[in-house]
Amino acid sequence: MRIGILTSGGDCPGINATIRGVCKTAMNHYGMEVFGIHSGFRGLVDDDVIPLTEGSLTGLLNMGGTILGTSREKPFKRKNNTLTEDKPAMMLKTIEKHQLDCIVCIGGNGTQKTAAKLADTGVNVVSIPKTIDNDVWGTDVSFGFDSAVSIATDAIDRLHSTASAHQRVMVIEVMGHKAGWIALYSGMAGGGDIILLPEIPFDIHNIGDTIINRLKKGKPYSIVVVAEGIPTVNGKKAAQYIAEEIEYETGFETRETVLGYIQRGGSPTAFDRNLATRMGGHATELIAGGQFGRMVSLHGSEITSVPLGEVAGKLKLVTEDNDLVVQGRRMGICFG
Amino acid sequence: MRIGILTSGGDCPGINATIRGVCKTAMNHYGMEVFGIHSGFRGLVDDDVIPLTEGSLTGLLNMGGTILGTSREKPFKRKNNTLTEDKPAMMLKTIEKHQLDCIVCIGGNGTQKTAAKLADTGVNVVSIPKTIDNDVWGTDVSFGFDSAVSIATDAIDRLHSTASAHQRVMVIEVMGHKAGWIALYSGMAGGGDIILLPEIPFDIHNIGDTIINRLKKGKPYSIVVVAEGIPTVNGKKAAQYIAEEIEYETGFETRETVLGYIQRGGSPTAFDRNLATRMGGHATELIAGGQFGRMVSLHGSEITSVPLGEVAGKLKLVTEDNDLVVQGRRMGICFG
Amino acid sequence: MRIGILTSGGDCPGINATIRGVCKTAMNHYGMEVFGIHSGFRGLVDDDVIPLTEGSLTGLLNMGGTILGTSREKPFKRKNNTLTEDKPAMMLKTIEKHQLDCIVCIGGNGTQKTAAKLADTGVNVVSIPKTIDNDVWGTDVSFGFDSAVSIATDAIDRLHSTASAHQRVMVIEVMGHKAGWIALYSGMAGGGDIILLPEIPFDIHNIGDTIINRLKKGKPYSIVVVAEGIPTVNGKKAAQYIAEEIEYETGFETRETVLGYIQRGGSPTAFDRNLATRMGGHATELIAGGQFGRMVSLHGSEITSVPLGEVAGKLKLVTEDNDLVVQGRRMGICFG
Amino acid sequence: MRIGILTSGGDCPGINATIRGVCKTAMNHYGMEVFGIHSGFRGLVDDDVIPLTEGSLTGLLNMGGTILGTSREKPFKRKNNTLTEDKPAMMLKTIEKHQLDCIVCIGGNGTQKTAAKLADTGVNVVSIPKTIDNDVWGTDVSFGFDSAVSIATDAIDRLHSTASAHQRVMVIEVMGHKAGWIALYSGMAGGGDIILLPEIPFDIHNIGDTIINRLKKGKPYSIVVVAEGIPTVNGKKAAQYIAEEIEYETGFETRETVLGYIQRGGSPTAFDRNLATRMGGHATELIAGGQFGRMVSLHGSEITSVPLGEVAGKLKLVTEDNDLVVQGRRMGICFG
Repeated sequence: MRIGILTSGGDCPGINATIRGVCKTAMNHYGMEVFGIHSGFRGLVDDDVIPLTEGSLTGLLNMGGTILGTSREKPFKRKNNTLTEDKPAMMLKTIEKHQLDCIVCIGGNGTQKTAAKLADTGVNVVSIPKTIDNDVWGTDVSFGFDSAVSIATDAIDRLHSTASAHQRVMVIEVMGHKAGWIALYSGMAGGGDIILLPEIPFDIHNIGDTIINRLKKGKPYSIVVVAEGIPTVNGKKAAQYIAEEIEYETGFETRETVLGYIQRGGSPTAFDRNLATRMGGHATELIAGGQFGRMVSLHGSEITSVPLGEVAGKLKLVTEDNDLVVQGRRMGICFG
Repeated sequence: MRIGILTSGGDCPGINATIRGVCKTAMNHYGMEVFGIHSGFRGLVDDDVIPLTEGSLTGLLNMGGTILGTSREKPFKRKNNTLTEDKPAMMLKTIEKHQLDCIVCIGGNGTQKTAAKLADTGVNVVSIPKTIDNDVWGTDVSFGFDSAVSIATDAIDRLHSTASAHQRVMVIEVMGHKAGWIALYSGMAGGGDIILLPEIPFDIHNIGDTIINRLKKGKPYSIVVVAEGIPTVNGKKAAQYIAEEIEYETGFETRETVLGYIQRGGSPTAFDRNLATRMGGHATELIAGGQFGRMVSLHGSEITSVPLGEVAGKLKLVTEDNDLVVQGRRMGICFG
Repeated sequence: MRIGILTSGGDCPGINATIRGVCKTAMNHYGMEVFGIHSGFRGLVDDDVIPLTEGSLTGLLNMGGTILGTSREKPFKRKNNTLTEDKPAMMLKTIEKHQLDCIVCIGGNGTQKTAAKLADTGVNVVSIPKTIDNDVWGTDVSFGFDSAVSIATDAIDRLHSTASAHQRVMVIEVMGHKAGWIALYSGMAGGGDIILLPEIPFDIHNIGDTIINRLKKGKPYSIVVVAEGIPTVNGKKAAQYIAEEIEYETGFETRETVLGYIQRGGSPTAFDRNLATRMGGHATELIAGGQFGRMVSLHGSEITSVPLGEVAGKLKLVTEDNDLVVQGRRMGICFG
Repeated sequence: MRIGILTSGGDCPGINATIRGVCKTAMNHYGMEVFGIHSGFRGLVDDDVIPLTEGSLTGLLNMGGTILGTSREKPFKRKNNTLTEDKPAMMLKTIEKHQLDCIVCIGGNGTQKTAAKLADTGVNVVSIPKTIDNDVWGTDVSFGFDSAVSIATDAIDRLHSTASAHQRVMVIEVMGHKAGWIALYSGMAGGGDIILLPEIPFDIHNIGDTIINRLKKGKPYSIVVVAEGIPTVNGKKAAQYIAEEIEYETGFETRETVLGYIQRGGSPTAFDRNLATRMGGHATELIAGGQFGRMVSLHGSEITSVPLGEVAGKLKLVTEDNDLVVQGRRMGICFG
């Protein structure tokens, strides 16, 4: 068998580890040939395909980024397809030319959607979820998330000393447009006093009261962790908006930090490396078993898979009954 | 309600986070009073008990070790009890004196056993599993494990550069007397070529062949990860034994490293902090609900609990059908 | 002898280590009594002073922030002194009340200035430079700098994977209002392609050309490290301004990250701990030897001291003949 | 000009960064051609030489190990040269064949010795010191040392939690056969209570007394940092010997850890990357200026060079008047 592999969407720690997982199992166990497709679906459109060998896999396990490159190309988007350029057809041509029996698509929600459409055209597709945001529906966790949470937690740890030394409120903005998973997990792990997620409405007066109550208890500083996707006004960024509101409400000196792109770069955690390896290996199993049109997923502690059609178009969001939210509230942490 | 809390057995990253979790929920949500018992069950025998306040909890989330101290005291062991010293009775006296409605016992397998016996004497007990070895039966994962795996993986990462620069075999010994979880997870995450666990028999000729085959494929170095508990001869330590055998079999320059105590110290990973927090909070829930005689556990992604009586005396071991073992073998990694 | 110790200005990794250094030498070797003054010079004004014991020093070596707290109080600033409040007199009163034979002032440029003025009023003063910015005149290096450079370098390392995966220009802004030391050292250590400092004028066309030339050499991404204090227009922040200009000049997708407060928090590096320890110990030596009015300094690899009067009001800036700038240019790195 | 570059002796963080420094300056600034010689002097003997291009340098700055490989080949050692194999002559032949105008030798004390002998045969040689042990004479610091100290300090940090939780003595053995630099710097940075170096004689009774005195002051645990090269009896390893002696003297539970090879692997610290970069660039400057037979060195904060002949055969050891030893003693740390 000959399989193609591509990575699409934002980069994320563990992509290279999962490429390695797919390939090692394919090459060593099943004798498959593997081809790397460059720059996501764009490489499938443009026929940018090279064979991968075991030598290509050296050093991949702990390397950030993706050796295949990535793009946000959406080949099925109408306006992307002109009279002179029929991207779906071009992809099929590339697949035929290289006689690829299956395409492994590694990516986030957008990628799963495109992968499902590609499968609908009759191509054999197996996909692997990949997102630091942890918002892909159908899997308990995606690799990249633990790494992002680790980096954000480390940053929050560092802010404690400044907050305490200067008796300040420190607001830190972490990634998460629609889903607040990183804010929730890093906020709880980093000892945040207030944690704001896109999914849970907040009342700025309540936040001010929390900070003032802490002062009354002898804690003249607070750590506020906010997801970038919380609602703000006048197009302000999350951290800036919340910092200004807190200063207004409490009169406390308040400083903001936007963590940004460092959350998605660098070497994956051990947890993410193993999750990525297992998911990669399982993708190859699916191919070997002829189980196409599926996305690999983590369910409890088992790796399994779900139909791509069920995943596409959904988002996995934090809910009010999430255990960490419930426990956090009981411990006295303010979620809004 | 008044609850006592103790930590027993080897120290492990996340103990302080779980103490914090128990206490914050108990104090803030349920208005319970919490008492710290020093040095494990020894403090219960010797009446070494102090009240904890919210002030006691500052800085605990990311602090290694245990603020309560620990010991390997086994108060129900016959020979530990003399005519003049009836330890079980002394413990009951301490519990009565402080009017403790429940004892929270945080520890590994030995602790669960003692906790079960304490429960058998009629004391209300709730326990929390804690071990870097991940060998407590009844929970998918214990906190401390992810931290130990992280440290070990980081160490293995470092060995790659020496192995490659000097074209050597590097053998690294990680913790795990009976269970090879750390070796399996750090070995896979660190890119080990050979991984030896107490649970999987190995053939030294096969190991030698693996190393020689790697040379033939142009890889003149190898990383071997061994659990301390694999069988050896003449009382040799695991790493030393394997390194000597490999040198004998292959003639390759082989070097050993014993990772030792640094695996159990220092700040817990974000993963372990959240697991510890959730488990601590859940322990308090159990107490509030009057559900005694139970050990908190992680099942899939949910925190739940199991009867203490079912846990005691069992070990959770790696099995041949463990997904990471199966996937590792397909990828070409040698498990013996 | 009785000495007082205060920390003033922005917090910085290593302050607690230097407090420990001052105190351990003072207590163990010279039998001095040490008093902690809270919140910088404000504690001297307000008589917020407590005795320190060896017990106070536990855990300080690797702890971020400052256990004494800090403030930006400038007691000699005219407008800070009203008819009813003569801050210099109040400080003298506090010093007399506690019979302090010397005040150890730990801080950056502002602190050195205030310390010099305090010395001018006849008080025995010894100061220790402390700044992540490394801009205190009279010392080769200040503690805190190596830690800040480490954090910034780690962040730049992470950006490489995103830059490369997405073929983007990544702009990262690090601290440094007047002095570009952090940008220079982290930019060089992190493999920055373009490094912009407040001290070296830059030409945006030249920067654009550098990026385009890299593309021509097959490197379709670049890392740009900028100090926050570089000149911009319309009050834009450094990273935003440079990112916009680069997009305009080159048409390349460009993303910005502002590293912010995480650069000054958390545990100091081993280098900073030892520098802080040595400087603290040396401060006590100066006191024991009656050498007042001096700032401890690192000169080459030796700890020595310089007259406070020579330090105050000066800034240590990067110059064009700095070895790292010269070497960087020869290697092909663009400084503007 | 055409230059050859080789790395010899034990691997060490920063080697690849210094290779990059040599090459970038040589290629970009001076238009020199650079050739990589594999496996140290063995590659010069065996003519294992390949041209390096700018592409070869990608990713080198933060990569551990050495892309050129290394060996402990000593081509001038009599017994290494047989009738049929005159290694010095073979090296000259390789140098002539590739028309190399200068050989850059990167290594520790052994390498400097060989480099000096090579220079004596009339070859143009420039060398760069490289050792985690920091024992090369003629330079204040070598790259690799700061990285090793960081790793060791991180390990000692971790041991504190176990020592404190279990009220134990923890003995950690770090690298340093003849010179105790790593033990001194990591011991001081990690908060060691007792630090033993090969250069400073120790009295085991004194060590026992120190531990007992700490108990009397309420500190029932101690951290002991030992260099591997301290004198022991019966061929015991340093940590084992000291741990046994302490248990015998004090009756305290004592545990040992041997840090081993992880000290020399992995990514270099920012400090080491910049030192390595500067030293590499300076080596090329020396070549461009025709200044051969010299070793690059750090003197204070300046990069300069010393004659190779003065370096060879000497060792830089810790002396009793070392500032960190003197300060440590005043603070109450036991050096024996």
